[in-house]
Amino acid sequence: MVKLWSKLLDIDYQGVVLNSEDARKIGVLDGDRVQIVEEAKGRFVQAFVVTTKTIIPEGMFGIYHKTNERLNATDGDIFDVRLADRPVSIDYIKKKMDGLKLTSDEMNLIVEDIVSDALSPGEATAFITGSYINGLDMDEVEYLTRSMVGTGDKLTFSSHPIVDKHSIGGVPGNKISLLVVPIIAAGGLKIPKTSSRAITGAGGTADLMEVLAPVEFSAEQVQQMTEKSGGVIVWGGATNIAPADDKIIIYEYPFKIDARGQMLASVMAKKIAAGADLVVIDIPVGTEAKVKTIEEGRKLAREFIDLGERFGIRVECALTYGESPVGHCIGVNLEVKEALSVLEGASEPNSLIQKSITIAGIAFEMAGKSQSGMGAALAEEILTSGKALAKMKEIIKIQGGNPEVKSEDFKPGEFSFEVKAPEKGYVIDMKNKALISIARTAGAPHDIGAGIYLNRKRGQSVEKGEVIYTIYADRYWRIERAIEHARQLMPVVVEGMLIDRVPSEYWRPPAK
Amino acid sequence: MVKLWSKLLDIDYQGVVLNSEDARKIGVLDGDRVQIVEEAKGRFVQAFVVTTKTIIPEGMFGIYHKTNERLNATDGDIFDVRLADRPVSIDYIKKKMDGLKLTSDEMNLIVEDIVSDALSPGEATAFITGSYINGLDMDEVEYLTRSMVGTGDKLTFSSHPIVDKHSIGGVPGNKISLLVVPIIAAGGLKIPKTSSRAITGAGGTADLMEVLAPVEFSAEQVQQMTEKSGGVIVWGGATNIAPADDKIIIYEYPFKIDARGQMLASVMAKKIAAGADLVVIDIPVGTEAKVKTIEEGRKLAREFIDLGERFGIRVECALTYGESPVGHCIGVNLEVKEALSVLEGASEPNSLIQKSITIAGIAFEMAGKSQSGMGAALAEEILTSGKALAKMKEIIKIQGGNPEVKSEDFKPGEFSFEVKAPEKGYVIDMKNKALISIARTAGAPHDIGAGIYLNRKRGQSVEKGEVIYTIYADRYWRIERAIEHARQLMPVVVEGMLIDRVPSEYWRPPAK
Repeated sequence: MVKLWSKLLDIDYQGVVLNSEDARKIGVLDGDRVQIVEEAKGRFVQAFVVTTKTIIPEGMFGIYHKTNERLNATDGDIFDVRLADRPVSIDYIKKKMDGLKLTSDEMNLIVEDIVSDALSPGEATAFITGSYINGLDMDEVEYLTRSMVGTGDKLTFSSHPIVDKHSIGGVPGNKISLLVVPIIAAGGLKIPKTSSRAITGAGGTADLMEVLAPVEFSAEQVQQMTEKSGGVIVWGGATNIAPADDKIIIYEYPFKIDARGQMLASVMAKKIAAGADLVVIDIPVGTEAKVKTIEEGRKLAREFIDLGERFGIRVECALTYGESPVGHCIGVNLEVKEALSVLEGASEPNSLIQKSITIAGIAFEMAGKSQSGMGAALAEEILTSGKALAKMKEIIKIQGGNPEVKSEDFKPGEFSFEVKAPEKGYVIDMKNKALISIARTAGAPHDIGAGIYLNRKRGQSVEKGEVIYTIYADRYWRIERAIEHARQLMPVVVEGMLIDRVPSEYWRPPAK
Repeated sequence: MVKLWSKLLDIDYQGVVLNSEDARKIGVLDGDRVQIVEEAKGRFVQAFVVTTKTIIPEGMFGIYHKTNERLNATDGDIFDVRLADRPVSIDYIKKKMDGLKLTSDEMNLIVEDIVSDALSPGEATAFITGSYINGLDMDEVEYLTRSMVGTGDKLTFSSHPIVDKHSIGGVPGNKISLLVVPIIAAGGLKIPKTSSRAITGAGGTADLMEVLAPVEFSAEQVQQMTEKSGGVIVWGGATNIAPADDKIIIYEYPFKIDARGQMLASVMAKKIAAGADLVVIDIPVGTEAKVKTIEEGRKLAREFIDLGERFGIRVECALTYGESPVGHCIGVNLEVKEALSVLEGASEPNSLIQKSITIAGIAFEMAGKSQSGMGAALAEEILTSGKALAKMKEIIKIQGGNPEVKSEDFKPGEFSFEVKAPEKGYVIDMKNKALISIARTAGAPHDIGAGIYLNRKRGQSVEKGEVIYTIYADRYWRIERAIEHARQLMPVVVEGMLIDRVPSEYWRPPAK
């Protein structure tokens, strides 16, 4: 053990930097763990060590930003720095790697150590990988869910029922929360919707909402706002509601996986922690969606319902059409524009409207707001009467945005490229993954103007030379890359047409 | 893309530090990859990004030490910094996670990206975990081996045969390389022995050798020294021979795994790259060794022989007794002392002498230095005649150590604790893993005086009150922890004795 003065390092990273000499005294090497303790104030965290010979002098230690979020040191505080024990949770991760079933306590320790960053990225990834390959049974999913709820904040509402919804990912343009939440709230139910940023998609609901209003709030703020306005649309990652999920997502991200057990647990943990009584799960089914077949969708639905029962929550699932994008737009500004236009009274696109009122309708029926089979009609009435738009303005306002915003305010990116049909025919295939990948290459969701507008949808006819879809980007080099990517992927197939390449004469130089 | 001035950061870490503003311009977030390019000099590396608002000003970027080992920048160089593509190797890792077989090219790309740090620790760990759980078949092991050889330096010797040996780990006190290498070299064969530092053990051969002489040399130096002295004992991690292995070991370390495929590949890749023609593999078999049963040992032996054949190398394997430690000593100074004493002529410990001459004898027979069945006798003659000691001094000298060193120069740690038999009986069990764990808790291999001396070995009788084993440490707090650990683990069992706890009256306060 060594006593060291703290020095804050404004670098968004985990860990502490020790002088090599102090590291030697403590008996640690790069990558080892230390405990940093100040007994007087009861401050105590674990951190990973990197060493330096020059930047931090002997007697001092540097604290990276993310570690100091937990330690709350100021420059010049004195701490005891000592060798930390290897976390026992690593043995339980190994157990899962070896295909064995974890107990409730074992799962809980793993989740606690993931949340407190006591596990290295490699160690946490091994848990994800082991669970992905060997699977989690329903008991383990329940333990994981309970641990995720227990390691974060919870909402407790003054009145019930609390409604929530979740869409399983994989379908581009699925902006329905921007309609479902205001419809449900306008119908007199409370819906504290926490949503995610895009992980593998072109824009998560939080990314979309963020161009309308701030989305980062504490759990307490989410609760207060929901009590007032009936609904919110916030980023779950900022709330400390089931924070384990956001960490797990980071470790899953490189592999574009969303392991069944983790998905069940992360969806339901957020709903449970948010205080939900009634949950509607939208399960898009399609060859390129996360759920490929109806049978698979039904099985997942039963698992969601089973998991809900284990926590006293009523779950209903809607298997929805996931072969094509929802609506015409993919990408942040494009999707927000489309959703707002529907709230403002547009009668198109039908796929977006029908899906939104169906999901909201199920919630109304579950809550007893309408008779069985009449929920969608109620939802439609709320949408077409303008009540949903008024509620959305209220939600935008309470979250700190400008309620006077209109769909026409949202513009796609400055650089665009139209892909035209070389022959007349019907659109027979629309590849979700390829569309998402092109939108991401164009800059979505980071660049809010980036995305794709589908001028034609599956089943529609197109004349020779008519535009099939348009790519948008905010930066010149991004559109160049996206076009190249589209040439390789060919996301839209017109019957009778061999799109072996997008001819280069369709390239329209950007306006300077 | 942004042009930035470089600033070196003397922190032993991967990555670059960008000002948040520059990160925004490039379009990267924390954890994303950038390419750093200086086209004039052809410098080009990938690195992971962390961001800061203050430490690095706009227009500048910080380079951590390990990244600059590849980039070779000096302060103030100008580089283009741009968004890097996601490595394709991640898709192949995913493929292995999904239980599919990798091709030669896919494996090679993964290994190249591990060696060049293009994969994050999490991504690399997923490869390890996926391979561990789903396994690698012999073709994949061959591809992995070839990739490991190809991504590092190779030795080419002027004369042949070149001999090498390897001991599979898991048995404490297995210091036989310190005897086998000088015996083989004294017998007129060349043995460029690269060895490892302790990973999960109490002291790797490199840790032991390092108290006798420097062990960090380039591949070229290893070759030159071996040409002169016939043998060396160096740390493989410094040579750039099969460097992928050292990275893989780091990712395996937390889980104490040594996956079969990776083990086969890493052992053979080092031998192939070191130019070996004849390889002896020591496979200790024991309930707590890595290989539990004779059948498992034979299977592994056949796989080593098969893998050797795929690369034109002759392999013989020795299944050895792995139920108990080799010799009496565990820990750096204790083991070196024991090995040197045998070279100096001690007739004990028998287990160490017999094992060493058996392994060296197999090498002599394979190389035609002795008739079949006569190798061990030749090895024994070389050992007892003092030729092995003379050769060891030559090896120590050529590596830059003091050749006049004697076994009596090596002392165990200042703090010690004797565990005594509460009743008379026979030693019926000696738990390898527990012994290693206690030795590590006492500070091995980092603290060179730390370790365990086995006053009694399996099968020996002990009188009431006689010492069964002694724990040594260099630091007071380490021996305290080791004693506590020994109380829990009870590594040595005496027949008829119920060691439910080590009574506290056996605690001898350390000399102040």
